[in-house]
Amino acid sequence: MGKSKRQLHLNVFIMNTGHHEASWRHKNTEPENITDIRYFQRIARIAEQAKFDSLFLADGLAVSQNIKHGAFVGLEPFTLLSALASVTEHIGLIGTVSTTYNEPFHVARKFASLDHISKGRAGWNIVTSGSSFEAHNFSKEAHLEHSKRYERAKEFLDVTTSLWDSWEDEALVIDRTSGIFADRSKVREINHISDTFKVRGPLNIPRSPQGYPVLVQAGSSEDGKEFAAQYAEAIFTAQQTLAEAQQFYADVKKRLAAYGRSPEQLKILPGICPIIGKTESEAKEKEQELNELTVPEYGLNQLSNMLNVDLFSYPLDGPLPELPSLSDINGNKSRFQLVVDLAKRENLTIRGLLHRLAGGRGHRTFAGTPIQIADQLEEWFLHGGSDGFNVMPPYLPAGLEEFAQFVIPELQRRGLFRTEYSGSTLRGHLGLPRPVNQYATAAASGAVSGAFQ
Amino acid sequence: MGKSKRQLHLNVFIMNTGHHEASWRHKNTEPENITDIRYFQRIARIAEQAKFDSLFLADGLAVSQNIKHGAFVGLEPFTLLSALASVTEHIGLIGTVSTTYNEPFHVARKFASLDHISKGRAGWNIVTSGSSFEAHNFSKEAHLEHSKRYERAKEFLDVTTSLWDSWEDEALVIDRTSGIFADRSKVREINHISDTFKVRGPLNIPRSPQGYPVLVQAGSSEDGKEFAAQYAEAIFTAQQTLAEAQQFYADVKKRLAAYGRSPEQLKILPGICPIIGKTESEAKEKEQELNELTVPEYGLNQLSNMLNVDLFSYPLDGPLPELPSLSDINGNKSRFQLVVDLAKRENLTIRGLLHRLAGGRGHRTFAGTPIQIADQLEEWFLHGGSDGFNVMPPYLPAGLEEFAQFVIPELQRRGLFRTEYSGSTLRGHLGLPRPVNQYATAAASGAVSGAFQ
Repeated sequence: MGKSKRQLHLNVFIMNTGHHEASWRHKNTEPENITDIRYFQRIARIAEQAKFDSLFLADGLAVSQNIKHGAFVGLEPFTLLSALASVTEHIGLIGTVSTTYNEPFHVARKFASLDHISKGRAGWNIVTSGSSFEAHNFSKEAHLEHSKRYERAKEFLDVTTSLWDSWEDEALVIDRTSGIFADRSKVREINHISDTFKVRGPLNIPRSPQGYPVLVQAGSSEDGKEFAAQYAEAIFTAQQTLAEAQQFYADVKKRLAAYGRSPEQLKILPGICPIIGKTESEAKEKEQELNELTVPEYGLNQLSNMLNVDLFSYPLDGPLPELPSLSDINGNKSRFQLVVDLAKRENLTIRGLLHRLAGGRGHRTFAGTPIQIADQLEEWFLHGGSDGFNVMPPYLPAGLEEFAQFVIPELQRRGLFRTEYSGSTLRGHLGLPRPVNQYATAAASGAVSGAFQ
Repeated sequence: MGKSKRQLHLNVFIMNTGHHEASWRHKNTEPENITDIRYFQRIARIAEQAKFDSLFLADGLAVSQNIKHGAFVGLEPFTLLSALASVTEHIGLIGTVSTTYNEPFHVARKFASLDHISKGRAGWNIVTSGSSFEAHNFSKEAHLEHSKRYERAKEFLDVTTSLWDSWEDEALVIDRTSGIFADRSKVREINHISDTFKVRGPLNIPRSPQGYPVLVQAGSSEDGKEFAAQYAEAIFTAQQTLAEAQQFYADVKKRLAAYGRSPEQLKILPGICPIIGKTESEAKEKEQELNELTVPEYGLNQLSNMLNVDLFSYPLDGPLPELPSLSDINGNKSRFQLVVDLAKRENLTIRGLLHRLAGGRGHRTFAGTPIQIADQLEEWFLHGGSDGFNVMPPYLPAGLEEFAQFVIPELQRRGLFRTEYSGSTLRGHLGLPRPVNQYATAAASGAVSGAFQ
């Protein structure tokens, strides 16, 4: 059943106690366990049993300003994902790492290592760091301007992909008799030189099972979309309506041709925070219960940052004040626009907007029955809105268990989602090709000759 | 038995196929598996069953110049150790991370994460990077001069320890009823400002089970010893004779008082590469067999780098040429001196020196029966030469299995080594105190007040 049908790709976005900002106060969550690896290993196993393509962790390089009221602090992605790799066999493992305050050699190396450790399941959510809180932890006075961050990100990707290619797949000879361990003609310096990075290489780890980790991107600004079209193989994005999703989907897919890429080489996965009930009213009650656990101060802080305006001096039950223009935003530009549009479309008060954002921070929240949720996913998937979804359980682990128990089987019944894994790498799950080694290809055609020493 | 006796501390130093440079050509090794995590997980389990205090990984930030003939390439320490944490429960996990080409925020965060993931088993072997090959992977023209590297390392430690203390142990309140997740008065900015580092903090992960990872150091130069006396809780060192070991031991222990520390707060663990035979002659034959597998080109490369002189133009069976003076060495100064002394003491030809270094790169190699090896360890331990040992199996995993099967039980019979773990943290195994939080203490006495926001 469904063998020949186009298949949904599902990622589960794991965030400590869940995506709803008040989830840590909910009776079904375990905020005491957010630094306990066994808690995350349990979640990873649930997601793997449900046949998700991948799981994903967000990240930032400064403590959240909202830790007084929010459970947003905890383990670091590389160490966490490596520990998850040990207890899973199929599910992809996608970590967020910034190109702004890192060195490409370190990042290329750690992802290659994670890809070896997981036997081909690593993915990199490539982000730029856009807050002064992060800048101040890395000896910088201020954070980089938006377009400069993307320039650096592009060069960062050029360096890391070159480093991953600095070893040919056949470089390890391991001939005990002759005493030749590695064929040095297949291990190359990359000699990247610019004002930003001077990196000689080669990398100090052989090429990994997937060649490169799956390259993922989440920014949806103009710069972000162009970056995605050039490099990304999957996008985590946020849209509230099918029309917005269709527009984004068509826009990004169209940009790929300019980089010699085909539409299937980039999977677009909008976020959805599903609140699941046996009946629609049960689902709405769950949503209401979560929203009543929110602390307005927390949401106001977050929304004030998002909109670059201090909302504390305005009445909660009144409308939004006048807002800055998009060009004045040097943080997440696309999220700004989405929130402004949402408030306008639904004519929301500040409190109403806080509640609409509490579940997914701008990602779509949908409360309904498993059938209703499956209907929504199918509609977007079949009508040019997405290639799958970034599933953001409102609370963990129970919200993921409910999705696995009630929504996944419904999607499987409709022939839209796998019932077994057919491969064991993340590229395999997503139907993405293994990258060709740029140097090996050039060497075969005689274009390069300079091997390492 | 042996309850009241002073106990040996044993670390196993894991290096791909083993410490002997030709180990990858030996019939008992698995060079095909050096990027396979299951291989390392097997080794970690053997070490844990043998009750080792810890296992340890070396590291460098450039590919070895010797990969043509040596299996020195592979997984990255943080990802590797996190994957080992998942399959072990007691053994300490010590990773090498350089202070020269890293940011203190990243390093502090990853060690705190590894310490949480392993539930208190992380250790940091603090090194400085001393090769131009490394510099060229990190946008630097040349590597830092020796004393500058140590200045940076000291400041790096000041920043990381402050970051680990930026969260008090009781900062997470997690009060569902009031909606208070964290007590922000117990989460502090560190506001470190100098020409080298400007780091505001706080760290974005709560204080870990051990407070700090166990701080380990391996440099034995003057700068290295002084650094160790100030910060280190364990030293991996290399001495060839009991007299050298006694001198080093007394020298370093004496320096601790100047930093208000007692001798027990620093464990000194000389390296030993044990080649184990049922009889002494079987052990010597094993050593000979390994030495015959060496490729002279490989050893000459390594020794030329160590001594800062090109040895390729001198006859292998002749003496060492005239060497530069210690002050001209900007790499590993203490290893230079050790090798010069070894060649002189044993009146070695270049080939003879290559063979003496093939097993442990300057660490002591000893071939003998389990009884003879236990005698050697006991002699150094009881006569002021060490607090335990850094065990460097010549080949893996068999060399570790032999040590676990034949030498450990002999040490246990003598009441010198644990038969069961009595705790579950690395600090517990080593008898080291959990660091006091510098800010909590100051706050209790009224000396600081500036909490985070």
